[in-house]
Amino acid sequence: MTSIDDLLRPDLRGRSPYGAPQLDVPVKLNTNENSHPLPDEVAADIEKALASVVRGLNRYPDRDAAGLRADLAAYLGHGLDVSRVWAANGSNEILQQLLQAFGGPGRVALGFTPAYSMHPIIAAATGTRWVDGRREADFDIDPAHAAAQIAEHRPDVVFLCSPNNPTGTALRPDVLAVVLEAAPGLVVVDEAYAEFAREGTKSALTLLPGRERLVVTRTMSKAFAFAGARLGYLAADPAVVDALQLVRLPYHLSALTQAAARAALAHAGVLLSTVDEIKRQRDRMVTALTGLGLPVVPSDANFVLFGGLADSRAVWRSLVDRGVLIRDVGLDGWLRVTAGTAAEVDAFLTAITAVVAALPVSESGA
Amino acid sequence: MTSIDDLLRPDLRGRSPYGAPQLDVPVKLNTNENSHPLPDEVAADIEKALASVVRGLNRYPDRDAAGLRADLAAYLGHGLDVSRVWAANGSNEILQQLLQAFGGPGRVALGFTPAYSMHPIIAAATGTRWVDGRREADFDIDPAHAAAQIAEHRPDVVFLCSPNNPTGTALRPDVLAVVLEAAPGLVVVDEAYAEFAREGTKSALTLLPGRERLVVTRTMSKAFAFAGARLGYLAADPAVVDALQLVRLPYHLSALTQAAARAALAHAGVLLSTVDEIKRQRDRMVTALTGLGLPVVPSDANFVLFGGLADSRAVWRSLVDRGVLIRDVGLDGWLRVTAGTAAEVDAFLTAITAVVAALPVSESGA
Repeated sequence: MTSIDDLLRPDLRGRSPYGAPQLDVPVKLNTNENSHPLPDEVAADIEKALASVVRGLNRYPDRDAAGLRADLAAYLGHGLDVSRVWAANGSNEILQQLLQAFGGPGRVALGFTPAYSMHPIIAAATGTRWVDGRREADFDIDPAHAAAQIAEHRPDVVFLCSPNNPTGTALRPDVLAVVLEAAPGLVVVDEAYAEFAREGTKSALTLLPGRERLVVTRTMSKAFAFAGARLGYLAADPAVVDALQLVRLPYHLSALTQAAARAALAHAGVLLSTVDEIKRQRDRMVTALTGLGLPVVPSDANFVLFGGLADSRAVWRSLVDRGVLIRDVGLDGWLRVTAGTAAEVDAFLTAITAVVAALPVSESGA
Repeated sequence: MTSIDDLLRPDLRGRSPYGAPQLDVPVKLNTNENSHPLPDEVAADIEKALASVVRGLNRYPDRDAAGLRADLAAYLGHGLDVSRVWAANGSNEILQQLLQAFGGPGRVALGFTPAYSMHPIIAAATGTRWVDGRREADFDIDPAHAAAQIAEHRPDVVFLCSPNNPTGTALRPDVLAVVLEAAPGLVVVDEAYAEFAREGTKSALTLLPGRERLVVTRTMSKAFAFAGARLGYLAADPAVVDALQLVRLPYHLSALTQAAARAALAHAGVLLSTVDEIKRQRDRMVTALTGLGLPVVPSDANFVLFGGLADSRAVWRSLVDRGVLIRDVGLDGWLRVTAGTAAEVDAFLTAITAVVAALPVSESGA
């Protein structure tokens, strides 16, 4: 008899579902959430917005989410409007729609590894061949090396992350310029963490005018503290937004999602006020980890990648034993930790200090 | 210079986005929505459930939606549990996940046309080759003919709709039995309208035990009057549910969706109390349209397909001119109308009676 495993697409057999381990520990700094709950005044308005659509849930939502997209355009600025902004259930769905329209069988997507680990997974799910582009030893992307890899593989879609996850650093402007020049197809700059960038960092949004093949993706999960509401979006040429209509599922964004996100955007100022505090905690972790003698990648995000660990898996486990969950991103010798509240960062720093002190001398240090 | 259209997947070029025309008319009977707004008592509890998760939206939702799936299993009955139920943003996302896991490049999906028009569209988006299976002249599926088509095309996924959309009739049990026997792969029975079936109609859920390749999809959009919340689900073997974990986007269901759907399910009895009234209105339309001399397909759904129209497009337009929007489903000579409230059905029947009366004698009638 045929088993379900026999019926599964061959390239999916034997795979494991994507997802960080969900452990019940007091301090969770593993998924780059914003640790700050929504302020009461914002929550009250979101509740009001939700209540206003509940009785009408018998009707389908606005299929084009036009109001929400206009609000997102207004938030982004840069002269954007509804024709240049698209929204979906988390930036994962945005990325999936991009690959459904511009990737697919016989097509190639390239990203510079390590980067957001969903990029290759979504590529696989859409039948797009994935090419692991190479970074330099310090996780930096070298413009000439990037151009050479693009020339070699001719990818239909190039993914860049700025700031990059899991390393944390924003993209150098010269790298983006070279990639835009070299790439034959779409260039997607994933700016999920853009709001946490250090002063002076330029968003790829500034480059949109006149660049039809550039796409900038964003999310409300991080700076907006809205991960539970699942709202990702992009800014791009209207032709890209039009193309996504061919692959989007009709009515993909619920009336609840649209109402909640619009209410949150109306309070962007208040919601984003946690960003400065999160950046302070991030910089505190950078200083403290450096003080422990560990190499730390410069961070423009709400997390920090630190290394110098002979057995990073054992360090991760020791931290869990101390009630602190961070992320093993599969980079030997390195771990990633989210910048949480001051109290969460205190707990992490206490734990990591104890763990590092207990390591054999030869195992720690830069 | 390369244009976005040049970068688009070749098979998508020149296509139009799926979606019913959204016209601003007083009576909308074109998308098979439930015309009854949510009762106040249910709305109040949903608002409370939503409010309880808003402050915590900074955190990602339950990735597995375990509580919601358990509630859906309890609603379905038939001994189902969380391991046999899966949920997503509308049944469209359920269907997409099924085709991502079990369809894809080099694979074949077959449905019996006319059926739910998203089946071939989602097949295309996932790179699955679509085969238009044939029905008999009365829109019925003949078991032997169905088996022969399956033997010819060896589809990896067969789609059946019960009740079928846009024709309205529930699947004959002997057809399902033959298809289950003949199909080499997955058999998906789309039961979006199951709750409206005439007395004595058996759900495919009754056949699930021991049939690993049978999948039954459902939605809360219709009988539950919950189209705006986007909640589709399926019941299947646990191995199918496990397989979908490989293609689902992590955290695909928002905390708002999960909370709202669970609150609605807690009031299933009240919400489903509109079903009987809708069936009454449906049967009233069947009687009245038959009385006008028009052929009507037997309906187990919340809509009616009627025909005998020499120029169905002109009839559709005349109804719009009278403020009534129904659906041209692309079947020459036929139109589909949703069973709305008594007042909406009154408006439709008044309009269609006038339109038919104005037709040249040779154009109307069975």
